[in-house]
Amino acid sequence: MSLTGTFTEATSVETVNARHAACTNPRLAEVMSALVRHLHDFAKEVHLTQAEWGLAIDFLTRTGQICSGQRQEFILLSDVLGLSMLVDAIGNRRPAGATENTVFGPFHVDDAPRRQMGETICLDGKGESCLFEGRVLDLEGKPVAGATVDVWSDNAEGFYDVQQPGIQPKGNNRGVFVTGEDGRYAFIGIKPVSYPIPDDGPVGQMLAQLGRHPYRPAHMHYLVTAPGYQRLVTHTFVGGDAYLASDAVFGVKASLIAPYERLEGQATQWRSPFDFVLAPA
Amino acid sequence: MSLTGTFTEATSVETVNARHAACTNPRLAEVMSALVRHLHDFAKEVHLTQAEWGLAIDFLTRTGQICSGQRQEFILLSDVLGLSMLVDAIGNRRPAGATENTVFGPFHVDDAPRRQMGETICLDGKGESCLFEGRVLDLEGKPVAGATVDVWSDNAEGFYDVQQPGIQPKGNNRGVFVTGEDGRYAFIGIKPVSYPIPDDGPVGQMLAQLGRHPYRPAHMHYLVTAPGYQRLVTHTFVGGDAYLASDAVFGVKASLIAPYERLEGQATQWRSPFDFVLAPA
Repeated sequence: MSLTGTFTEATSVETVNARHAACTNPRLAEVMSALVRHLHDFAKEVHLTQAEWGLAIDFLTRTGQICSGQRQEFILLSDVLGLSMLVDAIGNRRPAGATENTVFGPFHVDDAPRRQMGETICLDGKGESCLFEGRVLDLEGKPVAGATVDVWSDNAEGFYDVQQPGIQPKGNNRGVFVTGEDGRYAFIGIKPVSYPIPDDGPVGQMLAQLGRHPYRPAHMHYLVTAPGYQRLVTHTFVGGDAYLASDAVFGVKASLIAPYERLEGQATQWRSPFDFVLAPA
Repeated sequence: MSLTGTFTEATSVETVNARHAACTNPRLAEVMSALVRHLHDFAKEVHLTQAEWGLAIDFLTRTGQICSGQRQEFILLSDVLGLSMLVDAIGNRRPAGATENTVFGPFHVDDAPRRQMGETICLDGKGESCLFEGRVLDLEGKPVAGATVDVWSDNAEGFYDVQQPGIQPKGNNRGVFVTGEDGRYAFIGIKPVSYPIPDDGPVGQMLAQLGRHPYRPAHMHYLVTAPGYQRLVTHTFVGGDAYLASDAVFGVKASLIAPYERLEGQATQWRSPFDFVLAPA
Protein backbone atom coordinates (compact mmCIF):
# COMPACT_ATOMS: atom_id res chain seq x y z
CA MET A 1 0.00 0.00 0.00
CA SER A 2 1.35 3.42 -0.84
CA LEU A 3 0.91 6.06 1.80
CA THR A 4 1.85 9.70 1.50
CA GLY A 5 3.20 11.59 4.45
CA THR A 6 4.74 8.69 6.34
CA PHE A 7 7.77 9.26 8.44
CA THR A 8 11.36 8.86 7.28
CA GLU A 9 14.61 10.35 8.56
CA ALA A 10 14.68 12.60 5.49
CA THR A 11 11.06 13.80 5.69
CA SER A 12 10.64 13.93 9.47
CA VAL A 13 10.29 17.70 9.79
CA GLU A 14 7.80 18.10 6.94
CA THR A 15 5.79 15.09 8.14
CA VAL A 16 5.38 16.44 11.66
CA ASN A 17 4.80 20.05 10.67
CA ALA A 18 2.15 19.14 8.09
CA ARG A 19 -0.02 18.27 11.10
CA HIS A 20 -0.18 21.93 12.11
CA ALA A 21 -2.40 22.70 9.12
CA ALA A 22 -5.54 22.55 11.28
CA CYS A 23 -4.15 24.77 14.04
CA THR A 24 -6.30 27.87 14.48
CA ASN A 25 -3.56 29.78 16.32
CA PRO A 26 -1.06 30.86 13.64
CA ARG A 27 1.59 31.98 16.15
CA LEU A 28 1.44 28.63 17.98
CA ALA A 29 1.79 26.79 14.66
CA GLU A 30 4.76 28.99 13.72
CA VAL A 31 6.55 28.50 17.03
CA MET A 32 5.93 24.76 17.18
CA SER A 33 6.97 24.23 13.54
CA ALA A 34 10.24 26.04 14.19
CA LEU A 35 10.78 24.08 17.40
CA VAL A 36 10.21 20.75 15.64
CA ARG A 37 12.61 21.72 12.84
CA HIS A 38 15.39 22.77 15.21
CA LEU A 39 14.86 19.77 17.49
CA HIS A 40 14.99 17.31 14.57
CA ASP A 41 17.99 19.08 13.03
CA PHE A 42 19.75 18.80 16.39
CA ALA A 43 19.05 15.06 16.69
CA LYS A 44 20.19 14.45 13.10
CA GLU A 45 23.32 16.55 13.45
CA VAL A 46 24.62 14.75 16.55
CA HIS A 47 23.16 11.34 15.60
CA LEU A 48 21.40 11.25 18.93
CA THR A 49 21.35 7.67 20.22
CA GLN A 50 18.43 5.96 21.92
CA ALA A 51 20.51 5.68 25.11
CA GLU A 52 21.21 9.44 25.09
CA TRP A 53 17.54 10.15 24.37
CA GLY A 54 16.68 7.98 27.38
CA LEU A 55 19.05 9.98 29.59
CA ALA A 56 17.40 13.20 28.37
CA ILE A 57 13.90 11.87 29.13
CA ASP A 58 15.07 10.91 32.63
CA PHE A 59 16.75 14.30 33.14
CA LEU A 60 13.67 16.27 32.07
CA THR A 61 11.45 14.11 34.26
CA ARG A 62 13.62 14.67 37.33
CA THR A 63 13.79 18.40 36.52
CA GLY A 64 10.00 18.57 36.51
CA GLN A 65 9.55 16.46 39.61
CA ILE A 66 11.86 18.58 41.79
CA CYS A 67 9.86 21.74 41.00
CA SER A 68 7.69 23.02 43.86
CA GLY A 69 6.22 26.26 45.13
CA GLN A 70 9.72 27.12 46.41
CA ARG A 71 11.80 25.82 43.51
CA GLN A 72 11.66 26.20 39.70
CA GLU A 73 14.28 23.89 38.21
CA PHE A 74 13.16 24.47 34.59
CA ILE A 75 13.82 28.21 34.91
CA LEU A 76 17.20 27.29 36.36
CA LEU A 77 17.83 25.01 33.37
CA SER A 78 16.85 27.79 30.99
CA ASP A 79 19.15 30.15 32.90
CA VAL A 80 22.26 27.95 32.72
CA LEU A 81 21.70 27.29 29.00
CA GLY A 82 21.66 31.05 28.38
CA LEU A 83 18.09 30.85 27.10
CA SER A 84 16.63 33.14 29.77
CA MET A 85 19.17 35.84 28.97
CA LEU A 86 18.55 35.41 25.25
CA VAL A 87 14.78 35.78 25.57
CA ASP A 88 15.38 38.79 27.82
CA ALA A 89 17.70 40.31 25.20
CA ILE A 90 15.26 39.70 22.32
CA GLY A 91 12.40 41.26 24.29
CA ASN A 92 14.34 44.28 25.54
CA ARG A 93 16.31 45.81 22.69
CA ARG A 94 17.07 49.34 23.89
CA PRO A 95 18.37 52.48 22.24
CA ALA A 96 22.02 53.38 22.88
CA GLY A 97 22.49 55.05 26.24
CA ALA A 98 19.60 53.26 27.96
CA THR A 99 20.52 50.92 30.83
CA GLU A 100 20.55 47.29 29.74
CA ASN A 101 18.32 44.57 31.14
CA THR A 102 19.47 41.35 32.71
CA VAL A 103 17.72 38.30 34.20
CA PHE A 104 14.96 38.86 36.74
CA GLY A 105 15.87 35.82 38.84
CA PRO A 106 13.58 33.92 41.19
CA PHE A 107 14.03 35.99 44.37
CA HIS A 108 11.95 39.12 43.75
CA VAL A 109 8.88 39.57 45.96
CA ASP A 110 5.89 41.75 45.13
CA ASP A 111 5.38 43.10 48.65
CA ALA A 112 8.85 44.38 49.56
CA PRO A 113 8.76 47.17 52.18
CA ARG A 114 8.46 50.77 50.98
CA ARG A 115 11.31 52.73 52.59
CA GLN A 116 12.34 56.37 52.95
CA MET A 117 15.11 57.60 50.67
CA GLY A 118 18.52 56.97 52.28
CA GLU A 119 17.21 54.32 54.67
CA THR A 120 18.95 50.97 55.18
CA ILE A 121 17.61 47.76 53.69
CA CYS A 122 19.93 45.52 55.73
CA LEU A 123 18.06 44.25 58.77
CA ASP A 124 20.34 41.44 59.99
CA GLY A 125 23.40 43.59 60.69
CA LYS A 126 25.67 41.31 58.68
CA GLY A 127 28.04 42.30 55.90
CA GLU A 128 29.97 45.34 54.79
CA SER A 129 27.69 48.37 54.59
CA CYS A 130 27.46 50.21 51.31
CA LEU A 131 25.75 53.38 50.13
CA PHE A 132 24.01 52.85 46.81
CA GLU A 133 23.10 56.09 45.13
CA GLY A 134 22.50 57.72 41.81
CA ARG A 135 19.78 59.07 39.59
CA VAL A 136 17.02 57.76 37.38
CA LEU A 137 17.31 59.63 34.06
CA ASP A 138 15.69 59.70 30.67
CA LEU A 139 17.64 59.39 27.41
CA GLU A 140 18.23 63.17 27.39
CA GLY A 141 19.77 63.01 30.88
CA LYS A 142 16.77 64.64 32.58
CA PRO A 143 15.74 63.32 36.01
CA VAL A 144 12.72 61.01 36.13
CA ALA A 145 10.50 61.93 39.08
CA GLY A 146 8.16 59.34 40.61
CA ALA A 147 10.25 56.38 39.46
CA THR A 148 9.89 53.27 41.62
CA VAL A 149 13.26 51.71 42.46
CA ASP A 150 12.71 48.20 43.84
CA VAL A 151 15.98 46.66 45.08
CA TRP A 152 16.99 43.29 46.51
CA SER A 153 20.17 41.34 47.23
CA ASP A 154 21.46 38.34 49.12
CA ASN A 155 22.78 38.78 52.65
CA ALA A 156 26.44 38.49 53.68
CA GLU A 157 26.13 34.69 53.70
CA GLY A 158 24.84 34.51 50.13
CA PHE A 159 21.15 33.87 50.80
CA TYR A 160 18.03 35.91 50.06
CA ASP A 161 15.52 36.36 52.87
CA VAL A 162 12.97 34.15 51.07
CA GLN A 163 15.48 31.29 51.10
CA GLN A 164 15.80 31.50 54.88
CA PRO A 165 12.38 32.25 56.41
CA GLY A 166 12.66 32.25 60.19
CA ILE A 167 16.44 32.77 59.96
CA GLN A 168 16.58 36.13 58.21
CA PRO A 169 14.16 38.96 59.08
CA LYS A 170 11.41 39.28 56.46
CA GLY A 171 12.31 42.04 54.02
CA ASN A 172 16.03 41.77 54.79
CA ASN A 173 18.07 43.42 52.02
CA ARG A 174 14.95 44.56 50.17
CA GLY A 175 13.28 47.90 49.73
CA VAL A 176 11.16 50.02 47.44
CA PHE A 177 12.11 53.67 46.94
CA VAL A 178 10.39 56.40 44.92
CA THR A 179 12.35 59.24 43.36
CA GLY A 180 11.51 62.91 43.83
CA GLU A 181 11.89 65.78 41.35
CA ASP A 182 15.70 65.37 41.25
CA GLY A 183 15.41 61.72 40.15
CA ARG A 184 17.78 60.72 42.94
CA TYR A 185 17.76 57.43 44.83
CA ALA A 186 19.91 56.42 47.78
CA PHE A 187 19.88 53.58 50.28
CA ILE A 188 22.23 51.70 52.55
CA GLY A 189 22.65 48.01 51.80
CA ILE A 190 25.59 45.66 51.94
CA LYS A 191 28.28 44.98 49.39
CA PRO A 192 26.70 41.84 47.90
CA VAL A 193 28.57 38.52 47.81
CA SER A 194 28.77 35.88 45.10
CA TYR A 195 26.73 32.70 45.69
CA PRO A 196 25.92 29.40 43.99
CA ILE A 197 22.58 28.82 42.30
CA PRO A 198 20.78 25.80 43.83
CA ASP A 199 23.03 22.95 42.70
CA ASP A 200 21.66 19.94 44.57
CA GLY A 201 19.25 18.97 41.77
CA PRO A 202 19.39 17.79 38.14
CA VAL A 203 20.67 21.16 36.88
CA GLY A 204 23.50 21.14 39.41
CA GLN A 205 24.41 17.60 38.33
CA MET A 206 24.42 18.73 34.70
CA LEU A 207 26.72 21.67 35.48
CA ALA A 208 29.11 19.34 37.31
CA GLN A 209 29.21 16.93 34.36
CA LEU A 210 29.88 19.88 32.04
CA GLY A 211 32.77 21.02 34.22
CA ARG A 212 30.95 24.27 35.07
CA HIS A 213 30.72 25.92 38.52
CA PRO A 214 27.33 27.10 39.82
CA TYR A 215 28.34 30.58 41.03
CA ARG A 216 26.89 33.99 40.25
CA PRO A 217 29.09 37.07 40.70
CA ALA A 218 27.93 39.43 43.45
CA HIS A 219 25.15 41.78 42.35
CA MET A 220 22.37 44.10 43.52
CA HIS A 221 19.00 43.61 41.81
CA TYR A 222 16.98 46.55 40.51
CA LEU A 223 13.48 46.79 39.09
CA VAL A 224 13.00 50.40 37.97
CA THR A 225 9.62 51.50 36.66
CA ALA A 226 8.10 54.85 35.82
CA PRO A 227 4.98 55.81 33.82
CA GLY A 228 5.87 56.39 30.16
CA TYR A 229 9.11 54.37 30.32
CA GLN A 230 10.08 50.77 29.61
CA ARG A 231 10.28 48.53 32.64
CA LEU A 232 13.94 48.03 33.55
CA VAL A 233 14.93 44.70 35.14
CA THR A 234 18.62 44.70 35.88
CA HIS A 235 21.49 44.20 38.31
CA THR A 236 24.61 46.14 39.12
CA PHE A 237 27.63 43.87 39.53
CA VAL A 238 30.52 44.30 41.93
CA GLY A 239 33.59 45.07 39.83
CA GLY A 240 36.46 42.67 40.47
CA ASP A 241 34.26 39.72 41.45
CA ALA A 242 35.94 36.40 40.62
CA TYR A 243 32.90 35.17 38.68
CA LEU A 244 32.27 38.21 36.46
CA ALA A 245 33.53 36.34 33.39
CA SER A 246 31.78 33.07 34.23
CA ASP A 247 28.35 33.89 35.71
CA ALA A 248 26.49 30.54 35.80
CA VAL A 249 23.41 32.22 34.25
CA PHE A 250 25.23 34.60 31.84
CA GLY A 251 23.68 37.70 33.44
CA VAL A 252 26.76 39.94 33.30
CA LYS A 253 26.93 42.85 30.86
CA ALA A 254 29.97 45.11 30.91
CA SER A 255 27.78 48.22 31.19
CA LEU A 256 26.27 46.92 34.44
CA ILE A 257 29.53 46.61 36.39
CA ALA A 258 29.42 49.31 39.06
CA PRO A 259 32.24 51.01 40.92
CA TYR A 260 32.59 50.15 44.61
CA GLU A 261 34.56 52.88 46.38
CA ARG A 262 36.01 52.30 49.84
CA LEU A 263 34.91 55.04 52.27
CA GLU A 264 37.63 55.58 54.89
CA GLY A 265 36.77 56.65 58.44
CA GLN A 266 33.01 56.48 57.99
CA ALA A 267 30.30 54.26 59.43
CA THR A 268 29.39 53.16 55.90
CA GLN A 269 32.27 51.19 54.39
CA TRP A 270 31.53 51.41 50.66
CA ARG A 271 29.84 53.63 48.12
CA SER A 272 28.51 52.37 44.79
CA PRO A 273 27.22 55.11 42.48
CA PHE A 274 25.12 54.16 39.46
CA ASP A 275 22.68 56.05 37.24
CA PHE A 276 19.80 54.26 35.54
CA VAL A 277 18.70 55.53 32.13
CA LEU A 278 15.16 54.60 31.10
CA ALA A 279 14.03 54.21 27.51
CA PRO A 280 10.62 55.59 26.57
CA ALA A 281 7.78 53.06 26.47
CA MET B 1 35.35 47.98 32.58
CA SER B 2 35.83 45.86 29.50
CA LEU B 3 34.88 42.24 29.82
CA THR B 4 35.33 39.59 27.19
CA GLY B 5 32.81 36.83 26.77
CA THR B 6 29.76 38.65 28.06
CA PHE B 7 26.39 37.82 26.69
CA THR B 8 24.72 39.57 23.76
CA GLU B 9 22.01 38.46 21.38
CA ALA B 10 24.65 38.12 18.65
CA THR B 11 27.21 36.16 20.71
CA SER B 12 24.85 34.07 22.85
CA VAL B 13 25.75 30.68 21.36
CA GLU B 14 29.51 31.20 21.50
CA THR B 15 29.31 32.64 25.03
CA VAL B 16 27.42 29.66 26.41
CA ASN B 17 29.36 27.00 24.53
CA ALA B 18 32.74 28.43 25.57
CA ARG B 19 31.84 27.15 29.04
CA HIS B 20 32.10 23.56 27.83
CA ALA B 21 35.87 23.88 27.52
CA ALA B 22 36.42 22.18 30.89
CA CYS B 23 34.05 19.29 30.19
CA THR B 24 35.91 15.98 30.38
CA ASN B 25 33.22 14.11 28.41
CA PRO B 26 33.70 15.12 24.76
CA ARG B 27 30.43 13.55 23.59
CA LEU B 28 28.45 15.41 26.28
CA ALA B 29 30.12 18.68 25.29
CA GLU B 30 29.34 18.00 21.61
CA VAL B 31 25.67 17.18 22.25
CA MET B 32 25.11 20.08 24.64
CA SER B 33 26.86 22.58 22.36
CA ALA B 34 24.64 21.53 19.45
CA LEU B 35 21.55 21.67 21.65
CA VAL B 36 22.39 25.20 22.84
CA ARG B 37 23.00 26.35 19.25
CA HIS B 38 19.72 24.94 17.96
CA LEU B 39 17.75 26.18 20.98
CA HIS B 40 19.13 29.72 20.65
CA ASP B 41 18.65 29.71 16.87
CA PHE B 42 15.03 28.68 17.46
CA ALA B 43 14.41 31.49 19.97
CA LYS B 44 16.03 34.07 17.68
CA GLU B 45 14.19 32.86 14.58
CA VAL B 46 10.71 33.12 16.12
CA HIS B 47 11.57 36.10 18.38
CA LEU B 48 10.36 34.10 21.35
CA THR B 49 8.64 36.41 23.81
CA GLN B 50 8.99 36.30 27.58
CA ALA B 51 5.29 35.43 27.85
CA GLU B 52 5.74 32.48 25.47
CA TRP B 53 8.85 31.39 27.34
CA GLY B 54 6.79 31.49 30.54
CA LEU B 55 4.12 29.27 28.97
CA ALA B 56 6.83 26.81 27.92
CA ILE B 57 8.32 26.72 31.45
CA ASP B 58 4.85 26.05 32.84
CA PHE B 59 4.16 23.36 30.23
CA LEU B 60 7.45 21.53 30.89
CA THR B 61 6.87 21.71 34.64
CA ARG B 62 3.38 20.23 34.35
CA THR B 63 4.72 17.56 31.98
CA GLY B 64 7.30 16.52 34.56
CA GLN B 65 4.91 16.65 37.49
CA ILE B 66 2.32 14.32 35.89
CA CYS B 67 4.95 11.61 35.33
CA SER B 68 4.68 8.61 37.65
CA GLY B 69 5.54 4.93 37.70
CA GLN B 70 2.50 4.40 35.44
CA ARG B 71 2.85 7.42 33.18
CA GLN B 72 5.70 8.97 31.18
CA GLU B 73 4.48 12.26 29.74
CA PHE B 74 7.92 13.32 28.42
CA ILE B 75 8.12 10.20 26.25
CA LEU B 76 4.63 11.03 25.04
CA LEU B 77 5.78 14.58 24.24
CA SER B 78 8.78 13.21 22.34
CA ASP B 79 6.43 10.84 20.50
CA VAL B 80 3.96 13.48 19.32
CA LEU B 81 6.81 15.77 18.16
CA GLY B 82 8.16 12.93 16.00
CA LEU B 83 11.39 12.90 17.99
CA SER B 84 11.02 9.32 19.22
CA MET B 85 10.53 8.06 15.67
CA LEU B 86 13.46 10.14 14.46
CA VAL B 87 15.86 8.78 17.09
CA ASP B 88 14.58 5.28 16.28
CA ALA B 89 15.23 5.88 12.58
CA ILE B 90 18.75 7.25 13.16
CA GLY B 91 19.63 4.29 15.39
CA ASN B 92 18.16 1.62 13.13
CA ARG B 93 19.21 2.24 9.56
CA ARG B 94 18.67 -1.11 7.85
CA PRO B 95 19.69 -2.60 4.51
CA ALA B 96 17.02 -2.80 1.81
CA GLY B 97 14.73 -5.75 2.34
CA ALA B 98 15.01 -5.82 6.13
CA THR B 99 11.83 -5.09 8.10
CA GLU B 100 11.73 -1.50 9.35
CA ASN B 101 11.59 -0.47 12.99
CA THR B 102 8.96 1.69 14.57
CA VAL B 103 8.36 3.09 18.08
CA PHE B 104 8.53 0.69 21.02
CA GLY B 105 5.72 2.40 22.95
CA PRO B 106 5.16 2.28 26.71
CA PHE B 107 3.10 -0.93 26.95
CA HIS B 108 5.65 -3.72 26.54
CA VAL B 109 6.25 -5.93 29.59
CA ASP B 110 9.34 -8.03 30.19
CA ASP B 111 7.51 -11.02 31.63
CA ALA B 112 4.84 -11.73 29.00
CA PRO B 113 3.70 -15.37 29.00
CA ARG B 114 5.57 -17.84 26.80
CA ARG B 115 3.00 -19.61 24.62
CA GLN B 116 2.90 -22.57 22.23
CA MET B 117 2.94 -21.78 18.53
CA GLY B 118 -0.62 -21.27 17.24
CA GLU B 119 -2.04 -20.57 20.69
CA THR B 120 -4.34 -17.63 21.41
CA ILE B 121 -3.14 -14.52 23.21
CA CYS B 122 -6.66 -13.13 23.70
CA LEU B 123 -7.87 -14.02 27.21
CA ASP B 124 -10.88 -11.74 27.60
CA GLY B 125 -12.94 -13.18 24.72
CA LYS B 126 -13.56 -9.73 23.26
CA GLY B 127 -12.94 -8.59 19.69
CA GLU B 128 -12.75 -10.12 16.24
CA SER B 129 -10.39 -13.10 16.23
CA CYS B 130 -7.47 -13.03 13.83
CA LEU B 131 -4.76 -15.51 12.85
CA PHE B 132 -1.36 -13.80 12.70
CA GLU B 133 1.19 -15.90 10.86
CA GLY B 134 4.32 -15.74 8.80
CA ARG B 135 8.01 -16.40 8.94
CA VAL B 136 11.12 -14.88 10.43
CA LEU B 137 13.69 -14.70 7.64
CA ASP B 138 17.20 -13.45 7.04
CA LEU B 139 18.13 -11.09 4.19
CA GLU B 140 18.63 -14.10 1.85
CA GLY B 141 15.12 -15.36 2.60
CA LYS B 142 16.28 -18.26 4.76
CA PRO B 143 14.23 -19.12 7.87
CA VAL B 144 15.63 -17.98 11.22
CA ALA B 145 15.24 -20.74 13.81
CA GLY B 146 15.11 -19.91 17.52
CA ALA B 147 13.85 -16.37 16.96
CA THR B 148 11.84 -14.95 19.85
CA VAL B 149 8.63 -13.25 18.68
CA ASP B 150 7.21 -11.14 21.51
CA VAL B 151 3.77 -9.70 20.60
CA TRP B 152 1.30 -7.37 22.29
CA SER B 153 -1.78 -5.36 21.37
CA ASP B 154 -4.69 -3.49 22.89
CA ASN B 155 -7.96 -5.31 23.53
CA ALA B 156 -11.20 -4.70 21.59
CA GLU B 157 -11.90 -1.62 23.73
CA GLY B 158 -8.54 0.00 22.94
CA PHE B 159 -6.71 -0.67 26.22
CA TYR B 160 -3.62 -2.74 27.02
CA ASP B 161 -3.85 -5.11 29.97
CA VAL B 162 -1.38 -2.97 31.98
CA GLN B 163 -3.75 -0.02 31.64
CA GLN B 164 -6.58 -2.01 33.22
CA PRO B 165 -5.20 -4.17 36.01
CA GLY B 166 -8.07 -6.01 37.71
CA ILE B 167 -10.30 -5.43 34.68
CA GLN B 168 -8.37 -7.34 32.03
CA PRO B 169 -6.71 -10.69 32.76
CA LYS B 170 -2.94 -10.31 33.22
CA GLY B 171 -1.18 -11.19 29.98
CA ASN B 172 -4.27 -10.46 27.87
CA ASN B 173 -3.29 -9.98 24.22
CA ARG B 174 0.36 -10.74 24.92
CA GLY B 175 2.56 -13.70 24.22
CA VAL B 176 6.11 -14.81 23.49
CA PHE B 177 6.69 -17.40 20.75
CA VAL B 178 9.90 -19.05 19.58
CA THR B 179 10.35 -20.18 15.99
CA GLY B 180 11.45 -23.67 14.97
CA GLU B 181 13.60 -24.72 12.02
CA ASP B 182 11.03 -23.43 9.50
CA GLY B 183 11.16 -19.91 11.00
CA ARG B 184 7.36 -19.90 11.22
CA TYR B 185 5.29 -18.13 13.83
CA ALA B 186 1.52 -18.24 14.28
CA PHE B 187 -0.88 -17.12 16.98
CA ILE B 188 -4.51 -16.13 17.41
CA GLY B 189 -5.12 -12.60 18.58
CA ILE B 190 -7.74 -10.02 17.75
CA LYS B 191 -7.88 -7.55 14.92
CA PRO B 192 -6.51 -4.55 16.85
CA VAL B 193 -8.47 -1.31 17.15
CA SER B 194 -7.28 2.29 16.97
CA TYR B 195 -7.08 4.16 20.28
CA PRO B 196 -6.10 7.57 21.67
CA ILE B 197 -2.81 8.07 23.48
CA PRO B 198 -3.38 9.41 27.02
CA ASP B 199 -4.76 12.88 26.29
CA ASP B 200 -5.86 14.13 29.70
CA GLY B 201 -2.49 15.77 30.49
CA PRO B 202 -0.31 18.59 29.15
CA VAL B 203 0.51 16.70 25.91
CA GLY B 204 -3.18 16.12 25.19
CA GLN B 205 -3.85 19.83 25.78
CA MET B 206 -1.03 20.71 23.40
CA LEU B 207 -2.42 18.42 20.69
CA ALA B 208 -5.86 20.01 21.08
CA GLN B 209 -4.41 23.51 20.73
CA LEU B 210 -2.52 22.39 17.63
CA GLY B 211 -5.73 21.01 16.11
CA ARG B 212 -4.35 17.45 16.21
CA HIS B 213 -6.25 14.31 17.27
CA PRO B 214 -4.63 11.88 19.74
CA TYR B 215 -5.36 8.62 17.88
CA ARG B 216 -3.03 5.83 16.80
CA PRO B 217 -4.11 3.57 13.94
CA ALA B 218 -4.73 -0.06 14.95
CA HIS B 219 -1.55 -2.12 15.19
CA MET B 220 0.02 -5.29 16.58
CA HIS B 221 3.36 -4.82 18.35
CA TYR B 222 6.32 -7.10 17.66
CA LEU B 223 9.71 -7.43 19.29
CA VAL B 224 11.67 -9.99 17.26
CA THR B 225 15.10 -11.06 18.43
CA ALA B 226 17.51 -13.80 17.42
CA PRO B 227 21.22 -14.33 18.13
CA GLY B 228 23.35 -12.78 15.39
CA TYR B 229 20.61 -10.42 14.19
CA GLN B 230 19.63 -6.82 14.94
CA ARG B 231 16.81 -6.42 17.45
CA LEU B 232 13.61 -5.59 15.56
CA VAL B 233 11.06 -3.38 17.32
CA THR B 234 8.07 -2.87 15.09
CA HIS B 235 4.32 -2.97 14.54
CA THR B 236 2.11 -4.26 11.78
CA PHE B 237 -0.72 -1.88 10.98
CA VAL B 238 -4.25 -2.73 9.93
CA GLY B 239 -4.64 -1.60 6.32
CA GLY B 240 -7.57 0.77 5.80
CA ASP B 241 -7.49 2.21 9.33
CA ALA B 242 -8.82 5.79 9.39
CA TYR B 243 -5.68 7.06 11.18
CA LEU B 244 -2.99 5.50 8.99
CA ALA B 245 -2.08 8.87 7.50
CA SER B 246 -2.27 10.75 10.81
CA ASP B 247 -0.83 8.52 13.55
CA ALA B 248 -0.44 10.81 16.59
CA VAL B 249 3.10 9.47 17.14
CA PHE B 250 4.16 9.11 13.44
CA GLY B 251 4.79 5.37 13.80
CA VAL B 252 3.35 4.29 10.42
CA LYS B 253 5.65 3.14 7.64
CA ALA B 254 4.11 1.96 4.38
CA SER B 255 6.09 -1.30 4.52
CA LEU B 256 4.49 -2.18 7.87
CA ILE B 257 0.87 -2.12 6.71
CA ALA B 258 -0.32 -5.72 6.77
CA PRO B 259 -3.12 -7.41 4.85
CA TYR B 260 -6.17 -8.43 6.89
CA GLU B 261 -8.10 -11.14 5.01
CA ARG B 262 -11.65 -12.02 6.02
CA LEU B 263 -12.00 -15.77 6.65
CA GLU B 264 -15.55 -16.88 5.74
CA GLY B 265 -17.25 -19.72 7.58
CA GLN B 266 -14.48 -20.26 10.12
CA ALA B 267 -14.21 -19.76 13.87
CA THR B 268 -11.34 -17.34 13.30
CA GLN B 269 -12.65 -14.25 11.49
CA TRP B 270 -9.45 -12.75 10.03
CA ARG B 271 -6.01 -13.73 8.84
CA SER B 272 -3.04 -11.33 8.76
CA PRO B 273 0.07 -12.77 7.12
CA PHE B 274 3.39 -10.97 7.58
CA ASP B 275 7.03 -12.04 7.22
CA PHE B 276 9.75 -10.40 9.30
CA VAL B 277 13.19 -10.01 7.73
CA LEU B 278 16.07 -9.54 10.17
CA ALA B 279 19.28 -7.72 9.37
CA PRO B 280 22.54 -9.21 10.61
CA ALA B 281 23.90 -7.72 13.82
